[in-house]
Amino acid sequence: MDDYTRFISSTASKIKASEIREILAVIRMRRDVISLAGGIPDPRTFPRKELAEIARRMIIDLGDQALQYSETKGILEVREMLSHFLFEFRGISVDAENILVTTGSQQALDLIARTLIDPGDIVITENPSYLAAIGAFKIRGARLVGIPIDKQGMDTYKLEEKVKELKSRGEKVKFIYTIPVGHNPAGTTMPPDRKKHLVEIAEKYDLLVVEDDPYSYFIYDETVDIRPLKTYDSEDRVIYLSTVSKILAPGLRIGWIASPKDLTRRFELVKQYMDLHSPTLNQFIVAEAIRSGLVKEHAHKLAPFYRKKRDAMLEAIKEYFPDNVWYTEPVGGFFVFVYVLKEGFDTSKLLEKAINKYRVAYVPGKSFHTDERGENSMRLSFSYPDSDTIKEGIRRISELIKNEA
Amino acid sequence: MDDYTRFISSTASKIKASEIREILAVIRMRRDVISLAGGIPDPRTFPRKELAEIARRMIIDLGDQALQYSETKGILEVREMLSHFLFEFRGISVDAENILVTTGSQQALDLIARTLIDPGDIVITENPSYLAAIGAFKIRGARLVGIPIDKQGMDTYKLEEKVKELKSRGEKVKFIYTIPVGHNPAGTTMPPDRKKHLVEIAEKYDLLVVEDDPYSYFIYDETVDIRPLKTYDSEDRVIYLSTVSKILAPGLRIGWIASPKDLTRRFELVKQYMDLHSPTLNQFIVAEAIRSGLVKEHAHKLAPFYRKKRDAMLEAIKEYFPDNVWYTEPVGGFFVFVYVLKEGFDTSKLLEKAINKYRVAYVPGKSFHTDERGENSMRLSFSYPDSDTIKEGIRRISELIKNEA
Repeated sequence: MDDYTRFISSTASKIKASEIREILAVIRMRRDVISLAGGIPDPRTFPRKELAEIARRMIIDLGDQALQYSETKGILEVREMLSHFLFEFRGISVDAENILVTTGSQQALDLIARTLIDPGDIVITENPSYLAAIGAFKIRGARLVGIPIDKQGMDTYKLEEKVKELKSRGEKVKFIYTIPVGHNPAGTTMPPDRKKHLVEIAEKYDLLVVEDDPYSYFIYDETVDIRPLKTYDSEDRVIYLSTVSKILAPGLRIGWIASPKDLTRRFELVKQYMDLHSPTLNQFIVAEAIRSGLVKEHAHKLAPFYRKKRDAMLEAIKEYFPDNVWYTEPVGGFFVFVYVLKEGFDTSKLLEKAINKYRVAYVPGKSFHTDERGENSMRLSFSYPDSDTIKEGIRRISELIKNEA
Repeated sequence: MDDYTRFISSTASKIKASEIREILAVIRMRRDVISLAGGIPDPRTFPRKELAEIARRMIIDLGDQALQYSETKGILEVREMLSHFLFEFRGISVDAENILVTTGSQQALDLIARTLIDPGDIVITENPSYLAAIGAFKIRGARLVGIPIDKQGMDTYKLEEKVKELKSRGEKVKFIYTIPVGHNPAGTTMPPDRKKHLVEIAEKYDLLVVEDDPYSYFIYDETVDIRPLKTYDSEDRVIYLSTVSKILAPGLRIGWIASPKDLTRRFELVKQYMDLHSPTLNQFIVAEAIRSGLVKEHAHKLAPFYRKKRDAMLEAIKEYFPDNVWYTEPVGGFFVFVYVLKEGFDTSKLLEKAINKYRVAYVPGKSFHTDERGENSMRLSFSYPDSDTIKEGIRRISELIKNEA
């Protein structure tokens, strides 16, 4: 049998392979091309020795539990540890009962989508927003409405206007999805007054908020206020997500959701059909990495490590980029977002030329946008290459911007 | 805010907490109650020392990869190892490109449900069938049709009758879901002629088959033919699932799907929004456990280990149970399924009494059935307790059966 189309669900039929993904997969083989596309952590930061010892010890000492099936919402001791961790690192006060362990943040997004979204519901995001969140919401049939950003993230006045308009038209708006600190792809961090305003809007218009917070454990400018939305949340409307993917190791696939108990219970019922529970061993490894102080110590090292790379990128941008480029200056996260203010400049169309002629890769920005715009934008990541490579990469991109249209 | 009902999707609203799950959660605290309910592996079988050393070594030697993000369909070397493994253990010939690594078999079931099922589609299963599969198919809106079993599993003549009837009514039947070896909960294993017949029916009526095969690595009677359906599959209609949960450790949450390339590609596109990829570290651990021979060696030990427990259960059943009980005699898996042929005997209603008066627990069989029947059935597991406990548990259940109605 060759053609399976008649067996495929309408949901799955809508998902197309991304051409860009394919192109980017190919450049991994090309040593002459500098990739600013990726966005994965620099593996030199992984605390290998410490994690190897923790993994060994968890299996030897706790193997009866660590290798066994476990509760859908996550091991109790692990959720207790995460509750301490959230308080210490993010000032968030929640019990273990408010926490559900997920198989990475991506599962948290999918779980939220399945638990909250009916086809046709509206979800509000930044414009641009995180690609895999857009995907998870869209395959549930959500209609996405993007709110423009400036250098400080989502413009909450425009947010309120838009919510008012949607509500007055009788649209069903379920939640606002936001990455307040170190936004992917925008590279922005929201100031406290905007965070407060966002929570007020959720209260006024009866919405939930999904706060995605993977990057805030290391910040490049210590004077910046990075308190989470969740700490402004007196009405329990904020569903808070985080993960150890950026502060420990993404290959462990451990994330979590902190939410009101009633929602945690709903998430648990849905998750049980998704993967029964997240890997027990990985949960114990994460809990021990927190308990032993490894995560704390490690987070302290990550700030200067990635700050150097960010500085390299911003300095090179200032040196090489022409004036007709709008870009963000991140205080957290892995990304600088760029709009090229030049008639007809289309980053998707130019990607192949960028790779083959200029030997540099980026992620075209259009697919991060909710409104088919942003064809003149690109995401640049400084997390993986070393500083010299970053500088040379930016120089090559500046040539592309100057020479092409 | 107290009531979140207005935010919950219609899909999630339909999922109710299982009362039985709650009752069974409580008995974990009760040391005087013998539980034959569980069905989890005996942790004494976990090869802790070997896995601890493998985990340590994978992180030290391959940490750059093992702790990092990885491909959605699974690490290539791991899929290659699984391809060898499937050939050696199950006689299945597939390339790495036909294999997709999943976060346990449960994710495989959910992934298949999302990729193949549209609301209203019919899925055919054994009656009774695996609870978490029923759940995963139902939350996608499938209508389940159960085919009666006898002591040799699904009656394929009744299957063909039913398929013919459904097709003649114009119903959309997507696939047949089956556990041919060591069925959960039925305890049955299909003989070769039925397997062949099942595949022929799929060909004749243009259906797919989902073959769930977690238990066939250790069998209690070596004369039994346990070849998978997949080896009879000349038209590439069988989607084959397995996992290391029963032969190594369920806490690793590593399973896989072997399917035609076109379907593998579809599964990959959907999985990317579910959890990006399965834990990289766990994939490397499983691949190394296979490569080093640990899994093979371990599987050889599991057969006599669990055979002793199965024998204890069957001997006690023969000694204690009255004549009005129909039960299966498993050659694989962890379960004996029981129908009590006594007017008004309702295992759901009797569960509390069983626990409090007879100090024994089982899983009531009704929820395994697709047709609201089976209220006189129960699933008994011999995987976790030791042989003496199993015998005493069966004695207590026989008292329940004799005394209650």
